[in-house]
Amino acid sequence: MSDEPLDLATLQRRLADFAAARNWQPYHTPKNLAAALSVEASELVEIFTWLTPEESARVMSDPDTAHRVTDEIADVLAYLLQLCEVLGVDPLAALDAKIDRNERRFPI
Amino acid sequence: MSDEPLDLATLQRRLADFAAARNWQPYHTPKNLAAALSVEASELVEIFTWLTPEESARVMSDPDTAHRVTDEIADVLAYLLQLCEVLGVDPLAALDAKIDRNERRFPI
Amino acid sequence: MSDEPLDLATLQRRLADFAAARNWQPYHTPKNLAAALSVEASELVEIFTWLTPEESARVMSDPDTAHRVTDEIADVLAYLLQLCEVLGVDPLAALDAKIDRNERRFPI
Amino acid sequence: MSDEPLDLATLQRRLADFAAARNWQPYHTPKNLAAALSVEASELVEIFTWLTPEESARVMSDPDTAHRVTDEIADVLAYLLQLCEVLGVDPLAALDAKIDRNERRFPI
Repeated sequence: MSDEPLDLATLQRRLADFAAARNWQPYHTPKNLAAALSVEASELVEIFTWLTPEESARVMSDPDTAHRVTDEIADVLAYLLQLCEVLGVDPLAALDAKIDRNERRFPI
Repeated sequence: MSDEPLDLATLQRRLADFAAARNWQPYHTPKNLAAALSVEASELVEIFTWLTPEESARVMSDPDTAHRVTDEIADVLAYLLQLCEVLGVDPLAALDAKIDRNERRFPI
Repeated sequence: MSDEPLDLATLQRRLADFAAARNWQPYHTPKNLAAALSVEASELVEIFTWLTPEESARVMSDPDTAHRVTDEIADVLAYLLQLCEVLGVDPLAALDAKIDRNERRFPI
Repeated sequence: MSDEPLDLATLQRRLADFAAARNWQPYHTPKNLAAALSVEASELVEIFTWLTPEESARVMSDPDTAHRVTDEIADVLAYLLQLCEVLGVDPLAALDAKIDRNERRFPI
């Protein structure tokens, strides 16, 4: 557990330090990180594949499934932040700009 | 463009307000949001599919591709935050705990 | 339209000839073809993302959607056959063996 | 092992019989089968995620990896055939028509 404040930039730096300490950077091409991200997103989908919409809405009431879901969400976010790191993309600015565009594209 | 500070919680609330104003919540089951997340992750993969590792590392030097990459990253983060919203998962805490576990699992 | 009989091996050879005539083989590494396959599978998922189970069961009654679904199925099969080609895997034998294993794994 | 001839239609019927004998049809909506297909495609991608293009080309020389690859290919084909079954799509005709279109779209 870290004593540092919990924000996206701090987690992104922890992930970069973690990869650097293990010499994993050569593997972390944008192409590979995008693939890893999509694999983790599919592991999230796998949890819901055979559930009805109603069952999917109750997924956090089972502790084991809740832990699995939370773990996969962490994995998706981890690869997304590492992809942003190697590409030099600011994910918060990217999303902020996208919401702005969507507000113009889908007026209420 | 919003004048609010750019952090994950603010963007998550903007996304929730955006969906609520358009009555999209009935579509936003965990199952559907996980599927949407994986579709966006694959649109990111699509950009890199036929590139060599070296070409994938230079992807941001072309303005059109850079914009496309940034846009898909925003879409992935948007669906991840919306999924966290409906599930009641804190993505930063989830990732922080996951990095802690990985530090024990993969000692240097 | 081909006059040749419509079987998997014939289609697989047409796909190989098609790629060879355009000098696409250098791009057709197993890694790239697996990525392309998953991208096409996600384009199929995209059609169903926001549909209820009931709506998803009626998807072929709309001619435009039926065409889109059929087209994405063709794309998935195309990349699966091309992946099998470069790996030397016989997809029919692989599936036959898998069904045998599943019959033992999930007895009635 | 079946004594029946090894063709796509026979395997598709075996899969349908297998699901029917276990009363799995209610789960086999087009939406769910498309999700399952994409999950299996991602399990294939996972094998290649961190490999170089050259390593990916040698993946069948390791017996364990070769078995894993072949197994995932079988899973992708299984869900593709089951999806075709519930939708009434002929995968061979779909691919044949697609190759015809691609020959016009990408002239040599």
